[in-house]
Amino acid sequence: MSSTAIHLPYADLVTLLERVFVNNAVSAHNARILAENCARCERDGSLSHGIFRMAGYVSSLKSGWVDGQVVPEVEDVGPAFVRVDAKGGFTQPAFFAARPLLIEKVKANGVAVLAIRRSHHFSALWPDVEPFAEEGLVALSVVNSMACVVPHGGKKAVFGTNPVAFASPRAGAAPFVFDQASSAIAHGDVQIAARAGHDLKPGMGVDREGQPTNDPNAILDGGALVPFGGHKGNSIALMVEILSAALTGGYFSGEFDWSGHKGAQTPFTGQFFVVIDPARGGNDIFAERVAGICDLVLESGQERLPGDRRHATRAKAEKDGIPLAAELHARLLAMATD
Amino acid sequence: MSSTAIHLPYADLVTLLERVFVNNAVSAHNARILAENCARCERDGSLSHGIFRMAGYVSSLKSGWVDGQVVPEVEDVGPAFVRVDAKGGFTQPAFFAARPLLIEKVKANGVAVLAIRRSHHFSALWPDVEPFAEEGLVALSVVNSMACVVPHGGKKAVFGTNPVAFASPRAGAAPFVFDQASSAIAHGDVQIAARAGHDLKPGMGVDREGQPTNDPNAILDGGALVPFGGHKGNSIALMVEILSAALTGGYFSGEFDWSGHKGAQTPFTGQFFVVIDPARGGNDIFAERVAGICDLVLESGQERLPGDRRHATRAKAEKDGIPLAAELHARLLAMATD
Repeated sequence: MSSTAIHLPYADLVTLLERVFVNNAVSAHNARILAENCARCERDGSLSHGIFRMAGYVSSLKSGWVDGQVVPEVEDVGPAFVRVDAKGGFTQPAFFAARPLLIEKVKANGVAVLAIRRSHHFSALWPDVEPFAEEGLVALSVVNSMACVVPHGGKKAVFGTNPVAFASPRAGAAPFVFDQASSAIAHGDVQIAARAGHDLKPGMGVDREGQPTNDPNAILDGGALVPFGGHKGNSIALMVEILSAALTGGYFSGEFDWSGHKGAQTPFTGQFFVVIDPARGGNDIFAERVAGICDLVLESGQERLPGDRRHATRAKAEKDGIPLAAELHARLLAMATD
Repeated sequence: MSSTAIHLPYADLVTLLERVFVNNAVSAHNARILAENCARCERDGSLSHGIFRMAGYVSSLKSGWVDGQVVPEVEDVGPAFVRVDAKGGFTQPAFFAARPLLIEKVKANGVAVLAIRRSHHFSALWPDVEPFAEEGLVALSVVNSMACVVPHGGKKAVFGTNPVAFASPRAGAAPFVFDQASSAIAHGDVQIAARAGHDLKPGMGVDREGQPTNDPNAILDGGALVPFGGHKGNSIALMVEILSAALTGGYFSGEFDWSGHKGAQTPFTGQFFVVIDPARGGNDIFAERVAGICDLVLESGQERLPGDRRHATRAKAEKDGIPLAAELHARLLAMATD
């Protein structure tokens, strides 16, 4: 962080980001949800999904590709099944509209699912699942995005980065949470490497001819990423397409057409959740058992669990404020008024 | 296959395997379920989980480690939550005992989960999920096993091979099904390589000092496997422990103690299922959409989808019978009578 960094309290960053959204045709209600989501990413050090994304949000809104005003429509389609039509808006307002009914169904039945369609998800996935674990529930979510990943052994991008996120209560500690792209690297990290002028590690992507490359610009310029872990990551990416799009009624990652909206950056797809009440499992010490297996992993020599670094960054930000380059702060102020 | 191979019809192989189980203290009811499961693996060419496993089944039964006679206890613990106590028996009879109630709950609610505990799973996972897809449902299942995988960056085995299996209807074709270990290689394939005297590809495991090795014997002799795809496969392996053991009330992969049962080979853990009715998603063309994304993957240049080779092997076996070395056939006959 440069010496000109300022440190903003979380609430102040939320207010500033809210102003940016409202200034770009997002309703006050939706702006609040999106601003909190983005500020949480920045606060926790998920920088590729934090303030870095604001220019993309604004560009997509200005292009008319995404509707910031929309009121999502929640559908109660079964005792343990909720659907929501995001109607071309961002995913998070649709998710929050459906969340109370989802939790009610989980508590009543032991498990419930939520299928979101016609939605734009432009953030990290962990903010969607972590709060369930904080309430004692286990949550799994998947979201597809925009075609930028070639199938294992294939030549043409079919999958999005298609992350999978999972959260579980963990006694005596923050929840166990992971959020991982089914691509070898997150698209946001490729963008960051390109801006910074850094090469990537080998095995992350291919150029426009389908040949392996370490150059982030070659990947962004007509190339593509590859799935993590070969054919196994490929299977996960395909499962994410099935659950997020086929099951919800949303679009596949390679299917939506934004060509009429210059500046559009947000994928228009779907998202799927499974949320489980572990109390129904009859195991009263569930959270203690999760803590136990996490401890075994750390004792075996693994440096840290997924989420640990994020929680440490959050703790620091809650004490000192969220570090922000003065120049970036000025840019956000401009986006809030221009 | 040697020139002395015979070809057995599926029904005859089931009958023969059933006799082996009954001859080794398995009840007639449980023997039928286990024999069909094993014969299906052999028929489909899942050789590391087919007849190859029979010696291990018998050894575990003879050791008193697993109870072949047990009647599992199904517990209806919520409108969409089923538990079953396998009471130290094999998993498949427990699964079949709970399956009708599970399906009833899925149809009534849109989704339901099944948590199996105190169970021995010694087979492939795809036979558990594929039939749901044949009935129009989407199924995800995970099972933990015995500690033989070091966490990413760790030195001591904590995880089992912890497979994840997923099955979905696919219009105009066999279901889309994958079944993949969260280790870089399946333990059965390491055993097969050791018997055949073949080295493994690099990056599959470590020796007893925690150093990388390509020697299957060094992995089996105090060494361990590594997760597939680095930290991402690691997260999946940990999720499998949480769902299969913490949530069900079963044991973690490194937790059960079989030291008093010489010859025991079957892991004593738990298994978890999520089964979804896609019809509730409101998308009438779900199976057509799944076929569509599978076609896109193949058109991009991927050679085949997971499950395709298995379905081709099955089709051949249904026509010509299941190929079996005469010597192996003789050994099974001996196991059925000795």
